[in-house]
Amino acid sequence: MAVACNLKEILTEFIREVWSEGNAEAADKYIAPEYKIHHDPGDAWEGQQLDLAAYKERVRTLRTPFPDQSFVIKGLFADGNAVVLTWLWSATHKGDIPGFPATGAEVTMSGATAYFFENDRISGHWQITDRLSVYQQLQSQKASHSPQSS
Amino acid sequence: MAVACNLKEILTEFIREVWSEGNAEAADKYIAPEYKIHHDPGDAWEGQQLDLAAYKERVRTLRTPFPDQSFVIKGLFADGNAVVLTWLWSATHKGDIPGFPATGAEVTMSGATAYFFENDRISGHWQITDRLSVYQQLQSQKASHSPQSS
Repeated sequence: MAVACNLKEILTEFIREVWSEGNAEAADKYIAPEYKIHHDPGDAWEGQQLDLAAYKERVRTLRTPFPDQSFVIKGLFADGNAVVLTWLWSATHKGDIPGFPATGAEVTMSGATAYFFENDRISGHWQITDRLSVYQQLQSQKASHSPQSS
Repeated sequence: MAVACNLKEILTEFIREVWSEGNAEAADKYIAPEYKIHHDPGDAWEGQQLDLAAYKERVRTLRTPFPDQSFVIKGLFADGNAVVLTWLWSATHKGDIPGFPATGAEVTMSGATAYFFENDRISGHWQITDRLSVYQQLQSQKASHSPQSS
């Protein structure tokens, strides 16, 4: 149990420091030399194996349109070398993403991610995010700001 | 560990018998008298507490448009009274759903679900499904069968 608790603590710190606070360089402390994205529909790196530099680039790229993004952890479930995280995400849409120029809208999303560890380093994930929810929120922003409806 | 393994086995049987094979009545063997849907974006029962009859009705309603649906379990992660399941889903779209009359198309989706147990009964879940993927598959069916493109 001590090991499982420790992995939960490591993951909690990783999410806060790297993904919520946006300190991509801090990935050095958490990520294994080879990181595999096993499953992550919609993620540009799905199926790839990333080295540390590529992982940091992924953090920076994904945070650029949502620079104030933050995660609230809803649940942590540890089993062997894995920890599953259920989470809520919120952010301001400040940069362009495909199909959606920056709207300035507050958006929310939820997801679940299984993280895999090698010793105390995170070596990959299997993730589902509720992408449709973000799509619908941004579509509704588009509709409410279109010339036809103003 | 014996308890955790047992919960994984119970959950595996439950998914097979109730959700893949469609035996809604078998929920009697697995579901607690009160079942809470904690989080499940897009699910019509999200946030509700269901008794056994309502749970069976939910199974029947959700399977109606996808009567041959089946789940492949990718991962099982047990921690205390919870088991998280990561899964792939496939089905034939044989009945109407809002916005999409039956297309006969084969569709696939993935998801992750945290199931909560009380003793050996499942008492609720927190779920994320990749709804956007199904939306896009059905949209593309619509486009390829529209009068304009035929």
